[in-house]
Amino acid sequence: MSKFNAGILGATGAVGQKFIRLLQNHPWFTITALGASERSAGKTYREAANWIEAVPMPDTVAGLSVRNCVSGEFDDVDFVFSGLDSSVATDIEKDFASAGIPVISNAKNYRTDPTVPLLIPEVNPDHIELIKKQKFTADGSGWIVTNPNCVVVPLVTSLKPLYDAFGIDAVVVTSMQAISGAGYPGVASLDILGNVVPYIGGEESKVESEPHKLLGKLNEEGILNASFPIQSTATRVPVENGHMLAVTVGLKNKASASDVIDAMKNWQSPIADLGLPSAPPFPIKIHEDERYPQPRLHADSENGMQTAVGRIRETRVLDISYIAMAHNTVRGAAGGAILNAELLVKKGYL
Amino acid sequence: MSKFNAGILGATGAVGQKFIRLLQNHPWFTITALGASERSAGKTYREAANWIEAVPMPDTVAGLSVRNCVSGEFDDVDFVFSGLDSSVATDIEKDFASAGIPVISNAKNYRTDPTVPLLIPEVNPDHIELIKKQKFTADGSGWIVTNPNCVVVPLVTSLKPLYDAFGIDAVVVTSMQAISGAGYPGVASLDILGNVVPYIGGEESKVESEPHKLLGKLNEEGILNASFPIQSTATRVPVENGHMLAVTVGLKNKASASDVIDAMKNWQSPIADLGLPSAPPFPIKIHEDERYPQPRLHADSENGMQTAVGRIRETRVLDISYIAMAHNTVRGAAGGAILNAELLVKKGYL
Amino acid sequence: MSKFNAGILGATGAVGQKFIRLLQNHPWFTITALGASERSAGKTYREAANWIEAVPMPDTVAGLSVRNCVSGEFDDVDFVFSGLDSSVATDIEKDFASAGIPVISNAKNYRTDPTVPLLIPEVNPDHIELIKKQKFTADGSGWIVTNPNCVVVPLVTSLKPLYDAFGIDAVVVTSMQAISGAGYPGVASLDILGNVVPYIGGEESKVESEPHKLLGKLNEEGILNASFPIQSTATRVPVENGHMLAVTVGLKNKASASDVIDAMKNWQSPIADLGLPSAPPFPIKIHEDERYPQPRLHADSENGMQTAVGRIRETRVLDISYIAMAHNTVRGAAGGAILNAELLVKKGYL
Amino acid sequence: MSKFNAGILGATGAVGQKFIRLLQNHPWFTITALGASERSAGKTYREAANWIEAVPMPDTVAGLSVRNCVSGEFDDVDFVFSGLDSSVATDIEKDFASAGIPVISNAKNYRTDPTVPLLIPEVNPDHIELIKKQKFTADGSGWIVTNPNCVVVPLVTSLKPLYDAFGIDAVVVTSMQAISGAGYPGVASLDILGNVVPYIGGEESKVESEPHKLLGKLNEEGILNASFPIQSTATRVPVENGHMLAVTVGLKNKASASDVIDAMKNWQSPIADLGLPSAPPFPIKIHEDERYPQPRLHADSENGMQTAVGRIRETRVLDISYIAMAHNTVRGAAGGAILNAELLVKKGYL
Repeated sequence: MSKFNAGILGATGAVGQKFIRLLQNHPWFTITALGASERSAGKTYREAANWIEAVPMPDTVAGLSVRNCVSGEFDDVDFVFSGLDSSVATDIEKDFASAGIPVISNAKNYRTDPTVPLLIPEVNPDHIELIKKQKFTADGSGWIVTNPNCVVVPLVTSLKPLYDAFGIDAVVVTSMQAISGAGYPGVASLDILGNVVPYIGGEESKVESEPHKLLGKLNEEGILNASFPIQSTATRVPVENGHMLAVTVGLKNKASASDVIDAMKNWQSPIADLGLPSAPPFPIKIHEDERYPQPRLHADSENGMQTAVGRIRETRVLDISYIAMAHNTVRGAAGGAILNAELLVKKGYL
Repeated sequence: MSKFNAGILGATGAVGQKFIRLLQNHPWFTITALGASERSAGKTYREAANWIEAVPMPDTVAGLSVRNCVSGEFDDVDFVFSGLDSSVATDIEKDFASAGIPVISNAKNYRTDPTVPLLIPEVNPDHIELIKKQKFTADGSGWIVTNPNCVVVPLVTSLKPLYDAFGIDAVVVTSMQAISGAGYPGVASLDILGNVVPYIGGEESKVESEPHKLLGKLNEEGILNASFPIQSTATRVPVENGHMLAVTVGLKNKASASDVIDAMKNWQSPIADLGLPSAPPFPIKIHEDERYPQPRLHADSENGMQTAVGRIRETRVLDISYIAMAHNTVRGAAGGAILNAELLVKKGYL
Repeated sequence: MSKFNAGILGATGAVGQKFIRLLQNHPWFTITALGASERSAGKTYREAANWIEAVPMPDTVAGLSVRNCVSGEFDDVDFVFSGLDSSVATDIEKDFASAGIPVISNAKNYRTDPTVPLLIPEVNPDHIELIKKQKFTADGSGWIVTNPNCVVVPLVTSLKPLYDAFGIDAVVVTSMQAISGAGYPGVASLDILGNVVPYIGGEESKVESEPHKLLGKLNEEGILNASFPIQSTATRVPVENGHMLAVTVGLKNKASASDVIDAMKNWQSPIADLGLPSAPPFPIKIHEDERYPQPRLHADSENGMQTAVGRIRETRVLDISYIAMAHNTVRGAAGGAILNAELLVKKGYL
Repeated sequence: MSKFNAGILGATGAVGQKFIRLLQNHPWFTITALGASERSAGKTYREAANWIEAVPMPDTVAGLSVRNCVSGEFDDVDFVFSGLDSSVATDIEKDFASAGIPVISNAKNYRTDPTVPLLIPEVNPDHIELIKKQKFTADGSGWIVTNPNCVVVPLVTSLKPLYDAFGIDAVVVTSMQAISGAGYPGVASLDILGNVVPYIGGEESKVESEPHKLLGKLNEEGILNASFPIQSTATRVPVENGHMLAVTVGLKNKASASDVIDAMKNWQSPIADLGLPSAPPFPIKIHEDERYPQPRLHADSENGMQTAVGRIRETRVLDISYIAMAHNTVRGAAGGAILNAELLVKKGYL
């Protein structure tokens, strides 16, 4: 097939830069348009962006002229990725969808909209049918798809096999989150060097709610959310990339640690056979070494798209505890959105 | 009163060095004897120790000759503090107690002995009466008292007011532990720089059991342990000092977050009026700033002897969640043992 | 004597907060006025400041109402400490001096003014006579005194004994500077965690020029600057406090390493007998352990007011190399200014 | 050509593991034999090694049986890479060379031997002719080639264009070295977290001597060493990979900063046209951004084989200062040895 022309909204931010890095040499998508704030509009991307990725800025984008984030300036793209800040995403993403430009967004603004899919391709690919309920355009040409919070991705990816096999009663999760999750400049070094900050504003409410939609059932009316309670404590640690989660789960039907390991190992990803370029061969890697997973060693596994799980064991409170970890700005943000776009291509929405 | 002559066993190790630093200028205790391995015996402490404390080695100990850890070489002390490694503590501490030399130990070896007090002065001071059940000597002159694991101290100190006011059904705790807890050289920098290690060998079993003895009731037979289940996940983070705990508690009698705050604020420490030199004015400090407590900012509060608590809130799973933090090598180790010794003086055991 | 009433300009910033922390319980000075930007003026200090010090905000200042930084609002103080940003210090400090309010400043703006003392009490106390040349007021009641850049303090303090004993031909210095030197929020954690940044804007030119004035000779005309060349490379490292310097010096009269050690040890501080409260007993501490000094172990030595020196050795290029280190925000900033104020009291200028 | 069978001595150590990681999928070399200490001999590599690389252990080596480091057990290899500890390298490497097995070593032991090439392919490829002077075997089938210290590689690589164009009078270098340079477990986290250690045992003498051999001229007698003086200060910083150097150089023929930049840019690598698989397209990358190079951003450039240079400027002492940085365990160790082997293949020595 010929490649799709993709625009990036919020192109100068940390998530926008990650989109650019990950889309370099993508077999299906070519970046042809970059959008940012008025301050940057008109400049070349090289001028506008304070590039923070560890690889050089691709020449293919460095020379592109940054546009304002208005749909009228993006009529030459097939769709856009949105790395917009939540303070502006609501109106801008609506503008694009209403203009018939599909929006594949990492912003939180439309995640709770009952007609907008909150998508992890390996978990709830069927939810993309929600798109048909969207009314941004008369002909359905414009729509919005979102990916979850960066902690929710490894949490729900690891819970899904248990949810299918045993059912879930309750979840307690403490997250130790990397500084890259706060963007740039983000966390001040004086706050985090040799320290742990036991609070991340707005994070815990997402972790306690988004899994219910992701694990929900699609029916005529829409998504019937899952309903088990979740308790979340979100902390910041001096780690560059990779959110680590200490998870304790209560199961509807009791299971041993080995039952849980088998459930994860035998779990079949519904997109395994679709040949999506960014999909990891195995969505979950189970580590047997008690010291693993670790963010510095495993965040980049399978190009940062794999969820690592370890220390699966039976517990005295609830039933099962384990460690889960994934790359927060790849699998948990830009990479997840790109995988969503790949699924949407395969399913004929793009 | 005239000062007590104290010996230190394991004087060259990390805990031993902390004992020496904290006892410098202590109003009641003077270090008059140092014990270490055969490798060090005979050398001056200056020669034998690889001093890692951030203050200079006190001249008062630098010139002392290091002795072997055998009771016969310590007949000039009133008691000993033990910072011994658990691999040798069982026999050595027994040797000293049997020789009529009280042992106030930070080692884990005798913590589970039904006749040995596992002591946090603010929590279970009455447990020192267990000493009378010890049979190391006919005349009761020799005995052993222990302090808990460094995670257990802030956990139980913060749980005690809730246990008294509401009763406890269950506890889930994830600890983010400082590198100093592993001693020296301890954790390799390649393992922890910019990383989190989700496992600490042997730690979780202590966290899941020691609180039951600490919160147990003393009766004729001994200690009737508390019995609620505890789930622990112990992780290592790149922090120098201060173990942080994310705690979720189920209460027997339901209580609101403000009930819990009141319970902690109104809780009366049983040793408040004893005038123990190392006792903090308030054993628990409640932070209202959501960003607190943090190890780098608060581990040294009240000379490292105070437990900091924050983010007290109601939760969807169990009842209450909060953050607790204390200095692991001061309150959680040497400082805790010194406070035990001060209580034993006041109670007439020394 | 009765205590002096001191005001603090730039009180909400990182340097201002350090002034407040260090002046708590100062025997000579009481903080009676706080000045900050219009944004803060009118609020209590507790409301206005994002307190970042590791000790609680002193109640004595928390309730003070923050004033605008205009002399008219400070007629109740004996003098002011200035922690102002260089972008505003020129006009504000001139306003205060012109109004007869002495300004003891940490800002760089007047350091190069030929009538303004650039002062390290142990190095060039006689330079305070420059004050008499200032023309801010007719009666000389208003004047400005400054302290040097935070790298220059340990550099010149360690060079002074060599300058007096052997003369100096040339200096090459590479500084590894702590993040606290950039204020708050200052350095982004994504820039410095597990990293070194080989550039600090504007730093090197100060390091290459300020020592000449500090080591200059006072005569009728003013200061006759020293004239040896200095090469500086300023880098940022992931350290909280303490700037470390690798120094290589060329001497006018050749000297061995032991000659240099003797010169530093035998050097007499000109203020040793003045009884200044913030003066360290020995301005320079020479470490014999090759691994020392280290910022984390030694930055706080003598309340952060001592310069640590180590690894003094002869070299193949120029003559002598050594390591120097001092606390950048105490000795290198607020603490240095406070010591200047103490000297000015003793000398009768306050 | 058919692939060469390579053995690795010291295979379980940090350098040995890096050899294994870098040789995975190498087009010319296949690992067919692993040697380690008696403790490991007989075990499979999976059993024997505490694998610390961030990628999984290659299955191709995991099953290999570890051998003793004696030549008799390696008669099936074409040559060996040596990552041996210097405490044992002298005898073992001699044993292999004497048995007719070429040794390409990262150990320091033979670097100063007048008949052993100390080699950086881009700097002194002609030095390999020294091999003909070696007498380990009568037929010349066994010999030793070494690569330099990890600081010396970026130092000499960046000095070479200046040495050729202007000549060098003197060099002052301060190195800020990554923890991976100390191997595993190596540096204790309590020593380096949030700290700088101003001393690395044995390092400075290598930095001050090895450049003279590398820049020396080959003649009938052997290598005529370069003779300019070098002053080195070696420090350890909390960085995972990448040694950064602050270099100040005195030139024989004065040159401006732009002359130096031109000299580096126009410098022709003598191996540019040989098509060596591990050779970076450009041995030196010149950064124009004053904030660069940085270890975390640039250590992995060109697979960790490129030397990054920045901040080239004229100075008041000597002539030119700049920053140089390279990956210490890749370009500075295993990767450098592999490039040496590739050159030896092209030159017909293998």
